[in-house]
Amino acid sequence: MEPGSGSRDAGPAAKPVAAVLPAGGSGERLGGATPKQFCAVQGRPLVSYTVRAMERVSWISDIIVVVSPENIETMKSIIEKYGHKRVTIVKGGITRHRSIFNGLKVFAENQFSSHLLQKPEVVIIHDAVRPFVEEDILLKVVMAAKEHGAAGAICPLVSTVIASAADGCLDHSLERARYRASEMPQAFLFDIIYQAYQQCTDHDLDYGTECLHLALKYCKTNAKLVEGTADLWKVTYKRDLYAAESIIKDNLSQQICIITDVKEAIVQVGFLLHESLKSQVKVEAISISQSKYDSHLENLFSGQCYNFVCINDKKYATEEIQQLVDMLEKSNIPLLYPVVLILVHLNISENISFSIELEELSRIKKFAREVKNKNILVYGLLIQYK
Amino acid sequence: MEPGSGSRDAGPAAKPVAAVLPAGGSGERLGGATPKQFCAVQGRPLVSYTVRAMERVSWISDIIVVVSPENIETMKSIIEKYGHKRVTIVKGGITRHRSIFNGLKVFAENQFSSHLLQKPEVVIIHDAVRPFVEEDILLKVVMAAKEHGAAGAICPLVSTVIASAADGCLDHSLERARYRASEMPQAFLFDIIYQAYQQCTDHDLDYGTECLHLALKYCKTNAKLVEGTADLWKVTYKRDLYAAESIIKDNLSQQICIITDVKEAIVQVGFLLHESLKSQVKVEAISISQSKYDSHLENLFSGQCYNFVCINDKKYATEEIQQLVDMLEKSNIPLLYPVVLILVHLNISENISFSIELEELSRIKKFAREVKNKNILVYGLLIQYK
Repeated sequence: MEPGSGSRDAGPAAKPVAAVLPAGGSGERLGGATPKQFCAVQGRPLVSYTVRAMERVSWISDIIVVVSPENIETMKSIIEKYGHKRVTIVKGGITRHRSIFNGLKVFAENQFSSHLLQKPEVVIIHDAVRPFVEEDILLKVVMAAKEHGAAGAICPLVSTVIASAADGCLDHSLERARYRASEMPQAFLFDIIYQAYQQCTDHDLDYGTECLHLALKYCKTNAKLVEGTADLWKVTYKRDLYAAESIIKDNLSQQICIITDVKEAIVQVGFLLHESLKSQVKVEAISISQSKYDSHLENLFSGQCYNFVCINDKKYATEEIQQLVDMLEKSNIPLLYPVVLILVHLNISENISFSIELEELSRIKKFAREVKNKNILVYGLLIQYK
Repeated sequence: MEPGSGSRDAGPAAKPVAAVLPAGGSGERLGGATPKQFCAVQGRPLVSYTVRAMERVSWISDIIVVVSPENIETMKSIIEKYGHKRVTIVKGGITRHRSIFNGLKVFAENQFSSHLLQKPEVVIIHDAVRPFVEEDILLKVVMAAKEHGAAGAICPLVSTVIASAADGCLDHSLERARYRASEMPQAFLFDIIYQAYQQCTDHDLDYGTECLHLALKYCKTNAKLVEGTADLWKVTYKRDLYAAESIIKDNLSQQICIITDVKEAIVQVGFLLHESLKSQVKVEAISISQSKYDSHLENLFSGQCYNFVCINDKKYATEEIQQLVDMLEKSNIPLLYPVVLILVHLNISENISFSIELEELSRIKKFAREVKNKNILVYGLLIQYK
């Protein structure tokens, strides 16, 4: 996200968009007791990453997580522990389609939630076990759904698809280039997908798997197909958990947030740092006046930033740093990963003595020692800037 | 493999079986410069794991690796470095089918190899980027190919497959339960697949991807479809390399080879150890008389054993241990992973003094220090057994 691009407000429309995440699977193919959406990846349940990916998108008003009855308490504790917002838990059905239908009902019927949520214009359907979904593809399917009534991400087929005859022998193979794998996210005008679910047969609800098919069959809506990226893959087997873990580790080390105060010279330094880093790592740069520190940081932590560069020209920016550390602690992030915090004190006044600088450095060292056992690694940097 | 099961000799037939591994892909989907089959996984190129998986199967007489012209030297050095046996390198064509066809030609035409290889009854075709193939599934497809002329492994579809219309919208979706993903390995009666390749059109050679389809189209052979396991998946994206790395690490730590001499009491202890470990780790147990040490060990190292328990009752089994260490060094395995070697000296004579035991222990400690810098970790255990 570019600084000042204002993308937090630039949703696809003023009308609400909601997301339904079916998370009711039993994870049979994984070969473990824990359903895959609740498996820990870097110490955090997979579903929490997917919820966070949705939360980061400011124009998604409600996130409905549909879980099987026995996992409702688990899901509640995940939401509490990781501070997820805008999430409603809904009890799933015995099949995927029944679960999604339950998720949609919270916008139309009163029975599933303590209060009826505002009916969205567009609803996104996304698997809880596809944690790496980006805002870009969500926006694409939502915009396409607005235009076509339905839309879904697709990817090239990795294997040839074949049909077998009754004797277990090859009947025919499909020409790979003519077909695609239907992936998630998908998006629908709410009225279309809800109507499709209301009209569809028990056979569809029990044996079907494809929402795009229901929109076509019951509402004559030919979904727009949107080319997805390789990131959209679904965690299905144990190897996928391994892969997810490696990707998350990779991502963590490659994201930086630059925080400056609002003084022009400082903002300028932050901008230059951002420009020089952005080709190598994912950089977010923000300028915050002290009075708004808290609310800004809260937004940040729902993102994926775990490394911070704080630039200021105040001799003792103690208060801001302490606020940042407090927020980090509250967010539980340092429980999982060491957070790197680089404090840059930019000295633009000319008449500062060397001894004061040393004092400043030793103060930072002391602070670093204190917070190290909280898994926050602080480094200080003093720059004389004339 | 169970001890004494004799499975090294129990091939599917006396007539030869060969394997062709297409390894000519460019790895575009991986997003890197190195084709995925040559990417290092735990320091070793992916293709080497796949070749090793084939080598472990004693009834596969020849392994043909088909690589693009620019990678022939790379492949040669891989074969040399990792000591691969029974491998012939063949120059690939510009498409997958043309490469496989070239691989088959070494059994029928003289132009591709310095000497014509013995034509196999059955040929296995397997991707170089599917390193986790087991003997079990190879045997199944080979036996099925003998009976049906062609056979291939299949897996359930992970995603729904859809066809798009010309306008980029959904045309129809396939009922997931009725279709399967065609995976590898596949096996064919040599004459059938070779005839199919000889007869097929340039269009097939340039745009096709499915060998089972060629056997059906040109030889009216409906391949037998064999349910595969999740291990057969193809390394396609970067995340798959991550997954492969984790799986290899997992496997390494969970495999043990128990080596005993041929004395009855020692063999018995080895057997008991094997029985008690086999539910937790993959155990291979062998009894070797000293004179046959070398040839036996050579077979072992083409397998996947990196942890050894050596049980003997000789006071100074120096020679055998030295041989084992020499073989390990020659195999290059300790270059990649620390090898754990547990020496169990079972003392069944009654009149051994405590000081001799201490002497033995200090000898082992000295030996352990010497080999540690070769990445071989030796532990000694003395057991008084009356």
